[in-house]
Amino acid sequence: MTQKRFFFGKRSSVEEVEEGTTFSPKFDKDGLIPVVTTEADTGTLLMLGFMNEEALGLTIETKEAHYWSRSRNILWKKGQTSGLIQRVEELKVDDDQDALWLRVKVGGSGASCHVGYHSCFYRSLPLGNVANDLVYTESEKTFDPNEVYGDAPNPTQL
Amino acid sequence: MTQKRFFFGKRSSVEEVEEGTTFSPKFDKDGLIPVVTTEADTGTLLMLGFMNEEALGLTIETKEAHYWSRSRNILWKKGQTSGLIQRVEELKVDDDQDALWLRVKVGGSGASCHVGYHSCFYRSLPLGNVANDLVYTESEKTFDPNEVYGDAPNPTQL
Repeated sequence: MTQKRFFFGKRSSVEEVEEGTTFSPKFDKDGLIPVVTTEADTGTLLMLGFMNEEALGLTIETKEAHYWSRSRNILWKKGQTSGLIQRVEELKVDDDQDALWLRVKVGGSGASCHVGYHSCFYRSLPLGNVANDLVYTESEKTFDPNEVYGDAPNPTQL
Repeated sequence: MTQKRFFFGKRSSVEEVEEGTTFSPKFDKDGLIPVVTTEADTGTLLMLGFMNEEALGLTIETKEAHYWSRSRNILWKKGQTSGLIQRVEELKVDDDQDALWLRVKVGGSGASCHVGYHSCFYRSLPLGNVANDLVYTESEKTFDPNEVYGDAPNPTQL
């Protein structure tokens, strides 16, 4: 057990959580909080990740995005393998403080997706009736995942 | 038990989930998938919500955002009480299909936050060291929650 390094505010009342200035993020029963990461310049949604207390503390201290990988069960500095570091321009919290928003600038090619695309959200679903045929909205990968990650196991789980 | 109305694709292989065109969203053990909702015109993050199968199916069919309220445990058409309907311009899914992105246009005043602000993310945390003092990034509420919601219980939980 490592010593706890980061301490966030107490959730003392709904009023303080919603309308106060105390940062008191709510971690769920697994100790995680969801994080929306967008590209600072374009507003493009890059990814939805999760942080534990340590990942959040390190992100605040270093201004580089750290996450908790639910598939690998490890603390994970984004870009550690790929070089695609996310430099945090702004960190925001929502009304009930159970979600975070990072506005970032990405290093290297600017990509954020382990499959090789710029955004993890490279497919859209036509609306109007529930057919399950996705349409690609990015036409080319920005890097070759095999070159970057080699034999590392794919984090995607069925 | 109501009859299941919406059917999504099977998660048959990692390759198909990541690089195929079958929409096969992954619902977690509570039957929910997280949804990032941004303003189509500006890229502003409005909220992070959750959908169950029915909320997702209704959103696709009606092109109006439906969510599952975890605090109230009900299916919830956004704007049903407030009139701040979210008209969906685009629905996207991420690489491993465990997160959704809605790009929406909001009706009425354009607000999306039950506290009265435009975005739920109306406060930011200065970076560099872990101090817990938030800074407001929206200065005025766009509506009076008391007028809109009256005596309805506040969904925020400690």
